[in-house]
Amino acid sequence: MKSTVTELDVKGKEAKAASKNLAFLDTETKNKALLNIADALMSRHEEILAANKLDYKEAEASGMNAAMLDRLRLSASRLEGIAKDVRTVAALPDPVGEIIEERILPNSLQLIKKRVPLGVIGAIYESRPNVTVDIAVLCLKAGNAVILRGGKETLRSNMALAKVIQEAAYKAGIPQGAIQLIESTDRALVNHMLKMKEVIDLLIPRGGAGLIKFITENAAMPVVAGGIGVCHTYVDKDADLKKAVDIVYNAKVQRPTVCNALDTILVHTSIAERFLPIIAQELAKAGVEMHCDKRSLAILKPIPSLKLVPANEADWGKEFLALIAAIKVVDSLDEALEHIERYGSGHSEAIITENKIAASRFLNEADAACVYANASTRFTDGSQFGLGAEIGISTQKFHARGPMALREITTYKWIIIGNGQVRP
Amino acid sequence: MKSTVTELDVKGKEAKAASKNLAFLDTETKNKALLNIADALMSRHEEILAANKLDYKEAEASGMNAAMLDRLRLSASRLEGIAKDVRTVAALPDPVGEIIEERILPNSLQLIKKRVPLGVIGAIYESRPNVTVDIAVLCLKAGNAVILRGGKETLRSNMALAKVIQEAAYKAGIPQGAIQLIESTDRALVNHMLKMKEVIDLLIPRGGAGLIKFITENAAMPVVAGGIGVCHTYVDKDADLKKAVDIVYNAKVQRPTVCNALDTILVHTSIAERFLPIIAQELAKAGVEMHCDKRSLAILKPIPSLKLVPANEADWGKEFLALIAAIKVVDSLDEALEHIERYGSGHSEAIITENKIAASRFLNEADAACVYANASTRFTDGSQFGLGAEIGISTQKFHARGPMALREITTYKWIIIGNGQVRP
Repeated sequence: MKSTVTELDVKGKEAKAASKNLAFLDTETKNKALLNIADALMSRHEEILAANKLDYKEAEASGMNAAMLDRLRLSASRLEGIAKDVRTVAALPDPVGEIIEERILPNSLQLIKKRVPLGVIGAIYESRPNVTVDIAVLCLKAGNAVILRGGKETLRSNMALAKVIQEAAYKAGIPQGAIQLIESTDRALVNHMLKMKEVIDLLIPRGGAGLIKFITENAAMPVVAGGIGVCHTYVDKDADLKKAVDIVYNAKVQRPTVCNALDTILVHTSIAERFLPIIAQELAKAGVEMHCDKRSLAILKPIPSLKLVPANEADWGKEFLALIAAIKVVDSLDEALEHIERYGSGHSEAIITENKIAASRFLNEADAACVYANASTRFTDGSQFGLGAEIGISTQKFHARGPMALREITTYKWIIIGNGQVRP
Repeated sequence: MKSTVTELDVKGKEAKAASKNLAFLDTETKNKALLNIADALMSRHEEILAANKLDYKEAEASGMNAAMLDRLRLSASRLEGIAKDVRTVAALPDPVGEIIEERILPNSLQLIKKRVPLGVIGAIYESRPNVTVDIAVLCLKAGNAVILRGGKETLRSNMALAKVIQEAAYKAGIPQGAIQLIESTDRALVNHMLKMKEVIDLLIPRGGAGLIKFITENAAMPVVAGGIGVCHTYVDKDADLKKAVDIVYNAKVQRPTVCNALDTILVHTSIAERFLPIIAQELAKAGVEMHCDKRSLAILKPIPSLKLVPANEADWGKEFLALIAAIKVVDSLDEALEHIERYGSGHSEAIITENKIAASRFLNEADAACVYANASTRFTDGSQFGLGAEIGISTQKFHARGPMALREITTYKWIIIGNGQVRP
């Protein structure tokens, strides 16, 4: 059950060797493997759930909180959901082989820019065991081998899931070794993984800010960092207040523990006295605690039954991942943009306004992966965007930005077909 | 004339501030600035050439070799060529604002994937002063501010060029501070630049293997590494020998000092005895020294007047940048592919064959930015590919691969326009 550095090197070699064949595998075989995986997740649910039960009991005994325990837990119906997602990926177009550009040069050279897999993708993630399946399946579909390293709380679940996935995939013709799981929680193996740049073409960390920071700073290979969302919604002076209330409420309350949930409400001073009392009472009904700047506090203080806390500097730029919202009154769109520039994480930012010029300025100038006018930031999601799936959300500008799906884990090559051409 | 770390931080702040405005500058203004720069390079050639003359004299006195001296030297006609290249970039389509994807989601949200500048680009390069102009102009056109750090041999030339470019650009409406040159050769400033990840969104190193390696390993921000080309041409058993001779000769001799020039010839054993004597005599006429494996040496030894050297392990995977070619006889396409896999740098690889299956296998399986059938690897170049220009050639798989032009120094953002949508 323990993996060593040597074993990890072997896994790396196997993954790299498998990736060479996987890159040329036909779409049909890959899809068949994915459907096999979906079936196996259902038919072998007992062994998966048994492993998950052991993880759950251990986590419970260690005092894990209810929300985390719930994230860890698998059930027959959750497995059904995961299997359904696998079928969705099987139905997506194969990104590999896509002709991105093609032209005939004046000297008759045929130039083709063609999408190809990256090679081997490493994933280091925490908690939810469904991530094991999601990432493995997206990597396979895009022709990449994968080396997975999940959280220690879900090691048994991940091992059971990986076993089911591997057997189902290899039986359907996926090259042996294409799916690797590090069967150990030894941190030394993570450190070793970060140095395996000859093997791993791209590393995807998913988890808390600490994990992301550690990996970004220490990985020798390219990393797509993301998942940290300090999301602002700016309610402009020309906002439709009904829309503003609905959107802010949804962005904060619908699922507060995820990266695209609202953290800070910025309100234009000219509508703050009308808007804040309405939204604050709505948010209070959902149990939201509000961390208010001086001006918003002055407006909200007279209203009974609100959970108000005076905001301090640490509230700005904080990803709450909980039923907490920071509130600040601003004097202008410019001040809102400056606040976002300073405290945003480049994830998702929204403006609520009926003013087209203000909307256009915000959409252009807010420097984030996803910028919204009159909609909830909760839509930042590969499935919601119609990409069919999501391997993560990038908050960097390099390679991929925002929701990452199949195309975002590929690269391209230039193919040049000639008939004896030489450069004059 | 000396810059300090503090001054570099100021330049960084200025560049970042300028990039915010530059990102929204209209195409017309940017093009006007580029044409202004082209004109100024011509009208102010005297001050540029005077500065270059000082660099040249100092380099000459220090014992720089003739090839390097020639790379360093500017002349009125070379400036004319540089100005012409600037006009070419002005005529290229503006990548900024390009709609990469657009769709209406089932809930009526309008989703737009739009190309935007990266922000601030850093460039660290050696030798040729025209790189100062090339990079500055490509960055401006793509809406990016730029921080340039050229080689110490061309400091005076770069300072003169930067002054001319800055004045011409700012007069035409480019935001002040968008073009920054580090006016010092202090290595401490390079080290500091590598840490400025809050300011520099992408770092482009151009130069020798040592520089590239140092920057890749030490930069805190994303780097597009490239420029190291260990290029193979594989002459297959089904090669048209006339084409093979023309292409190999061109790839090795036409400009041996550049990254897309041929380094190693791989020859299928079944045609080695016919092909090698012909190409070797042609290459010998051009003064090419041949580092031969045992089998090719046995074939070529009887021929008089060839510069033959027995190859050693260090010859495989070596970028010669000179009139030297390594030669190896292989037993199969597979052996050629294995050799390339082991020793290639992921830059440009070619097969010469009339056999479509062999060509197709090579084009698919050789893992490089550019793969050729029946053409010279010398075509790996932004201008040759019809991209209009080139800021470098990436040999990595991440973000951009092969010749990088305007699009490759941009990113994108997702713009979502709603009418009150919330996530159910």
